[in-house]
Amino acid sequence: METLLKPLQDLVDKFRSLEGVGKKSATRMAFSILNMSEENARAFADAIIAAKTNIGICSVCQNISDSEICDICSSSTRDHSIVCVVEDPQSVMALEKVKEYTGVYHVLNGTISPMKGIGPDMLTIKELLKRVENENISEVIIATNPTVEGEATAMYISRLLKPFDIKVTRIANGLPVGADLEYADEITLFRAIQGRRDI
Amino acid sequence: METLLKPLQDLVDKFRSLEGVGKKSATRMAFSILNMSEENARAFADAIIAAKTNIGICSVCQNISDSEICDICSSSTRDHSIVCVVEDPQSVMALEKVKEYTGVYHVLNGTISPMKGIGPDMLTIKELLKRVENENISEVIIATNPTVEGEATAMYISRLLKPFDIKVTRIANGLPVGADLEYADEITLFRAIQGRRDI
Repeated sequence: METLLKPLQDLVDKFRSLEGVGKKSATRMAFSILNMSEENARAFADAIIAAKTNIGICSVCQNISDSEICDICSSSTRDHSIVCVVEDPQSVMALEKVKEYTGVYHVLNGTISPMKGIGPDMLTIKELLKRVENENISEVIIATNPTVEGEATAMYISRLLKPFDIKVTRIANGLPVGADLEYADEITLFRAIQGRRDI
Repeated sequence: METLLKPLQDLVDKFRSLEGVGKKSATRMAFSILNMSEENARAFADAIIAAKTNIGICSVCQNISDSEICDICSSSTRDHSIVCVVEDPQSVMALEKVKEYTGVYHVLNGTISPMKGIGPDMLTIKELLKRVENENISEVIIATNPTVEGEATAMYISRLLKPFDIKVTRIANGLPVGADLEYADEITLFRAIQGRRDI
């Protein structure tokens, strides 16, 4: 057995196609499948199909959803005049965990990235503009990640929103809570000073 | 969306059931599935079923195999009088990569571990004894891992093999190639001195 058995190698390849999974992890996971009962392996396969089949995109905010309009967009307790623009569904999850934000979201599905060949038209920016035009929105919070691409995308969107008479804000940069000034990078420190507040 | 969508949470749980996969990795992998095309997701599910359905156990050496008797056991170029006893199929893979060993294998499917409730009868030890009785075996190399459980299992098996008139050996302990004496643990150094050879 110089190489893996074909069905095992195929499975390892599938695991490797997942984000952030290397050869060793993929092999370990494939062996985990082999060590499962046939029933559990079948349930695993079914869960993949079920997730892929039952989860679609909310027609309003473009977040993942198991219904035409997601729970957040159809909620009557949320403030539909504030829209938080994020890169992906994971960002929505992260913000929802905080339980502080009561507005709604708009998921871009990425950031503008000439390096990866992702242009503005491949994101859901036109859907955002349509919402700003047609819905009664008073503020758009741009919460793309504070990376080069996230910042560029934020700038791009903020410029497009200029003609509309709404507030456009960007989430704050600064030191993460619990951090140490000694180890903070210069740009973060600069932003933290720039963004200082009265106490 | 305080928690994940049900089908997504189900998929995350499935990934978490794999060995060595935590909550964050599982979530990342589940999102990778969502970002796949439906065709690729279906191929992933099929690969799980295919691996589970098409891979069985070799009736001779108990290694994973896609036929009744595996390629190694049915090979005419290998020395069937030497049997290397290992814990799992991964060990066979590791040894095969070296291309030095030309004997055959016997896969125990674990080690004796009272802590995990694994007794000798849950391993393929009786199958090994049957092979030693019926086949023309001259040497058994015990290559369980040099851990507490691997050593205990090696001792147990070597005692069971005493009544048979065959050579029973254990793979060598010592410093791994490229290691530094300064950082070697004491037991490894002790074993390295004990196992010293003429040059």
